[in-house]
Amino acid sequence: MSSKEKYMQEALKEAKKAEKKQEVPIGAVIVYNGKIIARGHNLREKKKNSLYHAEIVSIDKACKKQKNFRLEDCELYVTIEPCLMCAGAIIQSRIKKVYFGARDPKYGAVISSFNAFEIKSNHRVSFEEGILEKECSDLIKGFFKGLREKRNFKNN
Amino acid sequence: MSSKEKYMQEALKEAKKAEKKQEVPIGAVIVYNGKIIARGHNLREKKKNSLYHAEIVSIDKACKKQKNFRLEDCELYVTIEPCLMCAGAIIQSRIKKVYFGARDPKYGAVISSFNAFEIKSNHRVSFEEGILEKECSDLIKGFFKGLREKRNFKNN
Repeated sequence: MSSKEKYMQEALKEAKKAEKKQEVPIGAVIVYNGKIIARGHNLREKKKNSLYHAEIVSIDKACKKQKNFRLEDCELYVTIEPCLMCAGAIIQSRIKKVYFGARDPKYGAVISSFNAFEIKSNHRVSFEEGILEKECSDLIKGFFKGLREKRNFKNN
Repeated sequence: MSSKEKYMQEALKEAKKAEKKQEVPIGAVIVYNGKIIARGHNLREKKKNSLYHAEIVSIDKACKKQKNFRLEDCELYVTIEPCLMCAGAIIQSRIKKVYFGARDPKYGAVISSFNAFEIKSNHRVSFEEGILEKECSDLIKGFFKGLREKRNFKNN
């Protein structure tokens, strides 16, 4: 297993914590100098707060840990392609590179619905996709399939 | 003074709080049913955290107050045009309408560098610009002028 897969595995562990809390299973970790300095998972429903995406939770923790709003030499691993808010937060925090597992065809703002890292900015973020893609994708698809089945069961 | 100007005046008060803390002076308020339910100002330097823009601080407070991640019938007033992260957070939190004072020609993501509210999304945000534009613009220009003067003084 490559180091990229190892870090994505950790992001997947975070995603599974979200799933256990009936949250959309998305997880993230932030790596600095080969070490995970922050972890986060989606907590939007639990916190009743639209800001609590996995990326935002982990950026918040990393800034606190580094005592710095610039996370310049950090890399972020996230199971699903970031949305517009999270892509913006990644730019704001000067993260160097983003690795994500699976695309979000509807709202992904890195490559799917929009290319946030290509617009004019004071900081350039690079990215790589497809790290443990199947695991990341299966987890979220399974979650939504489960939700649909529950809904159908209720409606019958 | 119109009610829009009255709310922007309150956002300006927040911006002035940021200025006193040597932060870029941007302030915001969130209005629900004609009442201000949350206030925020830029605290990026003080908190050493890239997430602490005025809009994010006020959205966070409003979600906590409403105990809801959906701020559907809320309006946000902010002195300066939101950046990409904040525009994304506004969409995520389902805010109905954004009023801003002055444009940010470099990084403004509503109309200046990019039109975030026009990309495909599950929620449509409307906006209006130019509320107390001169006051909002003068405040931030004065801040950066002061910074430059300080820098020149040091360099001489």
